[in-house]
Formats: sequence, C-alpha cells, structure tokens
Amino acid sequence: MDLRDVQRELPKYEYDINQVGIRNAKLPVNVLTKDGKKIPSVATFNLYVSLDKDQRGTHMSRFLQMIQNSIDVTVINHEFIKSLLMEVTERIGGNSFAKIDFPYFIEKTTPVTGLRNIIPTDVTFKGSLINGEFTFAFKVKHTVMSLCPCSKEISRYNAHNQRAIVTVSITPKDPYKIIWFEDIINIIESCSSGPVFSILKRTDEKFVTEFSYDNPMFCEDIVRCIAHEIDQKYKGQYKKVTIESEHLESIHPHNAYARLKLVGE
Amino acid sequence: MDLRDVQRELPKYEYDINQVGIRNAKLPVNVLTKDGKKIPSVATFNLYVSLDKDQRGTHMSRFLQMIQNSIDVTVINHEFIKSLLMEVTERIGGNSFAKIDFPYFIEKTTPVTGLRNIIPTDVTFKGSLINGEFTFAFKVKHTVMSLCPCSKEISRYNAHNQRAIVTVSITPKDPYKIIWFEDIINIIESCSSGPVFSILKRTDEKFVTEFSYDNPMFCEDIVRCIAHEIDQKYKGQYKKVTIESEHLESIHPHNAYARLKLVGE
Amino acid sequence: MDLRDVQRELPKYEYDINQVGIRNAKLPVNVLTKDGKKIPSVATFNLYVSLDKDQRGTHMSRFLQMIQNSIDVTVINHEFIKSLLMEVTERIGGNSFAKIDFPYFIEKTTPVTGLRNIIPTDVTFKGSLINGEFTFAFKVKHTVMSLCPCSKEISRYNAHNQRAIVTVSITPKDPYKIIWFEDIINIIESCSSGPVFSILKRTDEKFVTEFSYDNPMFCEDIVRCIAHEIDQKYKGQYKKVTIESEHLESIHPHNAYARLKLVGE
Amino acid sequence: MDLRDVQRELPKYEYDINQVGIRNAKLPVNVLTKDGKKIPSVATFNLYVSLDKDQRGTHMSRFLQMIQNSIDVTVINHEFIKSLLMEVTERIGGNSFAKIDFPYFIEKTTPVTGLRNIIPTDVTFKGSLINGEFTFAFKVKHTVMSLCPCSKEISRYNAHNQRAIVTVSITPKDPYKIIWFEDIINIIESCSSGPVFSILKRTDEKFVTEFSYDNPMFCEDIVRCIAHEIDQKYKGQYKKVTIESEHLESIHPHNAYARLKLVGE
Repeated sequence: MDLRDVQRELPKYEYDINQVGIRNAKLPVNVLTKDGKKIPSVATFNLYVSLDKDQRGTHMSRFLQMIQNSIDVTVINHEFIKSLLMEVTERIGGNSFAKIDFPYFIEKTTPVTGLRNIIPTDVTFKGSLINGEFTFAFKVKHTVMSLCPCSKEISRYNAHNQRAIVTVSITPKDPYKIIWFEDIINIIESCSSGPVFSILKRTDEKFVTEFSYDNPMFCEDIVRCIAHEIDQKYKGQYKKVTIESEHLESIHPHNAYARLKLVGE
Repeated sequence: MDLRDVQRELPKYEYDINQVGIRNAKLPVNVLTKDGKKIPSVATFNLYVSLDKDQRGTHMSRFLQMIQNSIDVTVINHEFIKSLLMEVTERIGGNSFAKIDFPYFIEKTTPVTGLRNIIPTDVTFKGSLINGEFTFAFKVKHTVMSLCPCSKEISRYNAHNQRAIVTVSITPKDPYKIIWFEDIINIIESCSSGPVFSILKRTDEKFVTEFSYDNPMFCEDIVRCIAHEIDQKYKGQYKKVTIESEHLESIHPHNAYARLKLVGE
Repeated sequence: MDLRDVQRELPKYEYDINQVGIRNAKLPVNVLTKDGKKIPSVATFNLYVSLDKDQRGTHMSRFLQMIQNSIDVTVINHEFIKSLLMEVTERIGGNSFAKIDFPYFIEKTTPVTGLRNIIPTDVTFKGSLINGEFTFAFKVKHTVMSLCPCSKEISRYNAHNQRAIVTVSITPKDPYKIIWFEDIINIIESCSSGPVFSILKRTDEKFVTEFSYDNPMFCEDIVRCIAHEIDQKYKGQYKKVTIESEHLESIHPHNAYARLKLVGE
Repeated sequence: MDLRDVQRELPKYEYDINQVGIRNAKLPVNVLTKDGKKIPSVATFNLYVSLDKDQRGTHMSRFLQMIQNSIDVTVINHEFIKSLLMEVTERIGGNSFAKIDFPYFIEKTTPVTGLRNIIPTDVTFKGSLINGEFTFAFKVKHTVMSLCPCSKEISRYNAHNQRAIVTVSITPKDPYKIIWFEDIINIIESCSSGPVFSILKRTDEKFVTEFSYDNPMFCEDIVRCIAHEIDQKYKGQYKKVTIESEHLESIHPHNAYARLKLVGE
C-alpha cells in the first residue's frame, strides 16, 4: 500500500518550530540508586525535536518506539537520556529534547528507634542535544518540615510548623559527571527544620517535635542555606542552580514561597 | 433539513442507565451569602438524567442550554437547583441529578488587630428529582489548623501542627429548609485547633500560635466534636451527615484521616 | 522513658468513628500480571480501622510499618490485601479497610504491523475486613477511543471522535476468586470505538481511523455493551458492578458521561 | 507589646533572593471584557518581591492585605497589576512580581442555529516592576478542535480528531498598550480545525463535523498559523510570543505537542 506522507510536504506558513513531539507518555521503569540498587517506578516522558521551516510534520510514532525499546534494556539515568536523544536526532533529525518525571524513594532510619523508612520524592531528568552538544539537568522535589522563626520568637510557647516542598534544579557544567540526587536530598533535609518520616514511634515523634523547634527556618532561610551548601560542595561544577521552597502554612490557606538562583562562573 | 435522530432508536442491549449527561461544564455565577450579598464565583456543573432501556441516547445539548439559561437570571442556591432539575425532568424525562461545585469565600476578622480577612472554601450542592421527589445535599470543604495532642504531650516544648482539610456533607430531612454553610463552617472552625487566616499581623500570629497549642486536636477529635455540635444544633433535621478530617501532617509525607457518619433517626 | 499515651484515653465526645488511618502513602511495588510476570509500579495506599467510642485515638505509625513490611516480600494482589487487613485488625483492632491505587500496563500489538505496544491503565484494589469477613473489589480505569454515532449519521463525511475514560468497578461475590483486570480491559476495548495505541505506523493509523468509523459508540452504548458482556461472562459471580464512560468530547469544552449499575442476584 | 522582628535581622547566609512572597491565594474578582462588561471569576494570586542579602525575611502579611484592598475597588486588568506592584515595591521594597490566573468566559453563537454559547478559557496575567520598569505579559489557554491531516489523507473515510489545548503567551513591547485576549482567542480558533461549543443543535453538529474535516490541522500547522496571524496583526508590537498546541489524541493515551517562539525585533 502506498500511503501519501503529508508530514514530508511543505508547510503553509514557513516557520521553524522549536519543539514538536509527544507528551505525558507513561511507562514502567527501573531507576538506579546511588548504592547500585534498582527500584521500580513509573516514568512520564516528554520527547521533542526541532523542526525546520521546510517540513510540515514530524513522525510521532517513532518517539514512543524509541522510548519503549530503550526501557526494556536499561535503567533511567543520564546515559539512558543521552543515548535516547542521540537515537532521536539520528532517526528524526534536528535538535532533540527529553524530560522524564518519576517518583523516587529514599531510605532513612528514625532518629531514636532506628526503624527503616521509605520516603517518596519526585525527580525530573532533562536532557537536550543541540547541534550535537549534550546538556543534562535534573530536579529534585522533596518534602521537609518547616517551623516559623517569627512565630517561635513572638509566642510564649509553640510555633506554627508545616510541610514544605523544596525543589532544587541543577544544570551541571559537565553533563557526564554524576551529581547524585541522594546527595541533594541530604542537603535539602539538613537545611530544613527536619526531614519528614513515614514511620515514627513516640520517642521518635518527641525527638522530631523538639528538633524542629530548635531549628526554625523561614522559606528565605531554607533557600539560602541550600545555596550555601551547594556552593560549598559543588563550587565550579554547576552552570545554573534554582532553589525553591514552598510552605503549606498551617495558619494560612495560601503558601509562602522563596526562589533563589545561582549562576556558575 | 431532516436529520435522523439515532438517539431515539432502540439500543442494542436493553439496560436501564442510572445516569447520563454532562460533566465538568464551567460557568461564571453569583452565589448568595447568608447575609444577603452576592459574591462572584465560577461553578462546575454535572447534570444527568436516568435513561430507560428502550431509548438509545439522551439529548446532550439541552443540558447546557438549561444551565446557561438559568444562570443569567438567578443565584446558585437550593431553589436554583430544584427549578433546574424540574426543567430537566420536564424537557428530557426520567429522574434528574445535579452536582455543582464552586469556590466560596467567608469573611472574618483577625483575633487581635481586627483586620478583615477573606477566606476561600469549597462548596458542593447536590440535588436529585427521583419520581417527583426532590432531595438536596451540600458539602463544605474547609481548611483549618490542627495541632497534635500526642506530640504536645510527649515533647518538652512545641507540637507538630499543620493544615487540615475538613469536609462536612449534609443531607437535610427537609430539602426546603436552609442550613447555611456559614454556620457549618463556624462549627468546623470551633472544632479545630484554630481557623486559618489570610492576613495576620504579628500580634495576631502570636495569638494564633498560642491558641492552637491550647487546643490540640487529633483528626479523631475533630470529627467527633463536629458530630456533637451538629447533633446539638440540627438534631432531627438531617437524614445523613458525613464528617471527614484529613491532616497534611508536617512530620509525615502522607496524611492522617478520620471519617464519621451520622444517620438521622 | 515513660511517655503518656493520650490515644488510649477516653474521648471528650463518645462517638464511634467509621474509619481512621492514613492516606496517600506512596511506595514502590511490583504487580503480578495475568501471565505471571511482575511489573514495576508505584502504589498509593489508604489504610483505615474503625475506632470504638471509648478510645480517643488510633496508632498511626503502625499502618505504615505494616504496609512497608508487606511490600518487601510480595506483590500487590488480593491476597496481599487480605493478609495486610488481617494484620491490621490483629494489631490495632476493629474493622479494617484498604484502598490501593497504582498505574498498570498492558501489552498489545498494532492491528496491521503487529508492533508491540505498552499501554498505561489505572487500577484500584479495595478490601475490607468487617467482623472477620473479607470483601474485595477492584476498579479499572482505561482509556479508549469513542466516535459519535449521531455525528456520523447526520454528517455527509467524518464524525467527531475522542478519548473516552471507561471505569469498571467490580465487587465479586467470592473475594477469593480472581477476576483478572486484563479480561475486564479486553471487554472495555471490545465495547468501544477502538483501543488506543502508543505506537501506530501509518497502515495501522489508517486501520484504526476506519475501524472507529465502523464502530460508532455513544457513552450510553459503551456502558450497556460492557454490562452485557460482564453479564455473559461473569453471571452469578458479582455482587455489584458499576460501569462509567466519560468522553472528552472533541467538539465541546465539557465531557459526556454515562453510569450503569448492575446488582448481582 | 513589643515583639522582636526577626525578619529584619541579618540572615545566616548572605545571598540575594530573587523572589519571595505568597502563592496560591484565591479571591473572588470581576474581570473586564473587551466590550466593557464585568464578569465574575475567581483569581489565584502569586505575589513576590526580591530580597537583598542583608535582610533575613520579608513581611508576608502585607501581600494579602494589598491584594485584598485592591480587589474591592477595581477589576482585574493590566492597570490593576501595575498599581498593585507599585504599592508592593513602595511598601515592601525591592523588585516586585505578580502572577494572576483566572477562568474567563467568551460568548459565541453556534454556526447554524445562532444559539448563544458561553465558553470557558484560562487566562494568566504576569507583571513585574524591576528597577522601576514595568513589564506585562499575558497567557491565554484555550480549547479547540483538531483533526489529523495524515489520518484524513491515508484513510478511505473519517479522520481522528480531538480536543487541543492551545496556549499563547505574549509579552507586548509596550506594557500599556492593550492586546485583548478576545482577539488572541479569535486567532487561535481560526487556526484550528474549529472552535468548541457548549451547545450544539444537530444542524450545528453536522456543520462542525464537516467543517473540521475540511480543516485538518497538525499541532505543527496550528502553531505556525498562529505565528503567522500574530505577525500579521501585531508586527512590531511584541517582545516575545510563545505558542503551544497540545492535542489529547483520540487514538493514543499520550498527547502530541508543538511549541514555537517568536522574538520581536
């Protein structure tokens, strides 16, 4: 059967398109942890190419085919993204762009009883291959506890505290040098009023309650502390870092929010 | 033009359909407050009829037409819903069902400085007209503060606290007797560790922080307190009440939750 | 350290609580497929107990502990849920309730080129242990194609078509007899204007486009067809079946929707 | 009472903060239409300032106070945003940033029967005041119909079609010169396979079904057409335009997507 390929024709209006492709494709994956384990997850893929002004359409079915082939043989990491982008650019042409979101899980032990905890976090990997040059970035969105320094200071007792969602996005200078998001999560937790736990026995809950009161943090404090720690640990290794902290204020129906950007020299 | 009406034909498989209609239709509305004011909002409508086994399809376009005509002349309240359902049953036939969700806003003043606050809440109206009998129910989903009694008891200082989302759904015995959701919101707030505020000056924040410590409430405590207050105030007036409290625990990545059902005698 | 246990005290207002526990706890899991494979996923757990009027609070930390212990040794299926509920009732007391949501993936081949496709679907498992009696129900939420019979009939060419989200919830009479959701998904797809595919070559796309035009289905048609097929295949095996079809109408900003309930004799 | 103001102190780590403030504050508003009417809506506000490295915290309560005061006296438009930002910078200092999202509604008549339709759309206003210079941008997110040219070309009859969500973001060169989003919506609809309607009689549905078949559009076609139309109508008036089209493919579980950026000379 000879089916006409309208995608290959000239478009009516000749504009370059920055990105065209597929969005919100879900697939089961395994993700590699820092200590070499594979953990199950479900990834949501966006995959695009650039399209020149002289071609009407891209070939959408190939995107899913390439993603699907890849996930059978490997785990999701920056090498996976690079080889996916190289295949996209080779088979479809143009620059290529990938964004992959997935829930991830870290382990920790409770502060007093030492019970094992499995804590969810959200990770995003972003990659691009532009004129043959590969860039890679990742984002960690992690939940911590925040306790308000102002509320503590002005009140005779207690202080309002709440969940804070901290997001750190890093574009490393060298896309091939791994920055583990486990390490970024450690920094986030150390710059908060305390980590959250899934299991806390009563002696742990006492510890966590008092610990948070001893470590009050504004959203401003959290983003500055993370900026400082990242500067200490990764100086010279990043192109760009964006740090956000959004607090689900227990005393308000709206959120408090801060954002701080670091630019590498 | 004479277009065949496939909806009127016999279906292939003859089953009665419980509900068929439209979902997620958004329209601008005005809502009537307890003190007689109209406030702007945006309502999301679901509207259904039952369909007998001998008719293939309902007439979808009429649903939106009837909703749209109604909202031009009135405000959203239980009378609006009744007249909408009566029109639906008259023009389309069968039993009819409506669900309308909209953000609503209450006013309150801060506890010390007396500043005016406008606080969002979520309201749902549900109505049905079954064999000519009108039933009406409404739901209020309101944010309050909760402070953990266990954390307070076991810790030398501080207690974890967080936003709690309290939902109260009421089916009154008499669908024509108004139970104001402003009154239900007052009960919800009085059964929490304190209301949330959009604006709090520092003397207010001090008050709210200390007040919540003096009023620690488990999710179990909140649903029982609301059950008690509703029993006190509306005894004999309800067919069914469902009370839920979901707490966005500041120390956990998951939520604590309780549900309590009251059945009218 | 001897910490007072406020949960064990008497509540201020003595009401039984229907359900109390934890919500929205996420964990990595493996799910068993009909053909014996394990596939990775991420599950969201809600787990509750009933609480008598003479006890103030339940012990929240145990819920997560029991979930976490279980997922290390097994896969998510109805036996997993039963043993989880039995442990909950044994260790915490009262009736127990579980709801587990997870993305699931089915395989299929394209109609002409025979390419392998991995298609996402959403599954929910619900279980309860009430006075020692175990009940189990599951829900499948699956995306299919729908093409409007009225639009086809009245138009000289073309017909509006769109994604439809079909949900089938089944409570089997015998909670220990497995009804595979792969089989339910097959029924859903056979009662639609066609399945959706992640990868379609052009000869496949031609097939799918023409196939949907040859199989126009209202939301009313879909829920009745599924009711018929379930009646044929599972007569006498279910207590209750709820079938819903919601169509993201390509010609409207709102959705069309139908719901049909079957009650087992 | 003399309460210590910890916000005014020096921070531990001296980093400038790009944006700090409040997020997700909801308030009832009226919005001005092109033809001078006010329509009710509910707006979600984000409001931030920049914070210098020598101050620990900003004063969060003032943000809500300024928003709340403003909405009582005016309607949401670009002048509202400018005066809000000027007040923020005057009272809190630093640069200021606002983002306001709200549902909006346009009127249209059906193509054959001429019935009035009220169609929802989503609008975002963004403003900033940086070193005294005001910039303004807005975004319209509008639902249209899309019909696949490839599916039409290769199939003997029918073509897959679906809802497409088109987003156009415009930063005008002159923030004081109004570009009405009604005009942008007209362009979006004229560059699609047809507008969506809330109410369609059968003769209208026939028209719309055939019209979409006569106007097949890839996501690539839609963004290029809009780029062309905006260039024709607003040449020299914009700094930056971003055009996106995301199609909820009726044959796939994932979406097709294209993005095109125009930069003003």
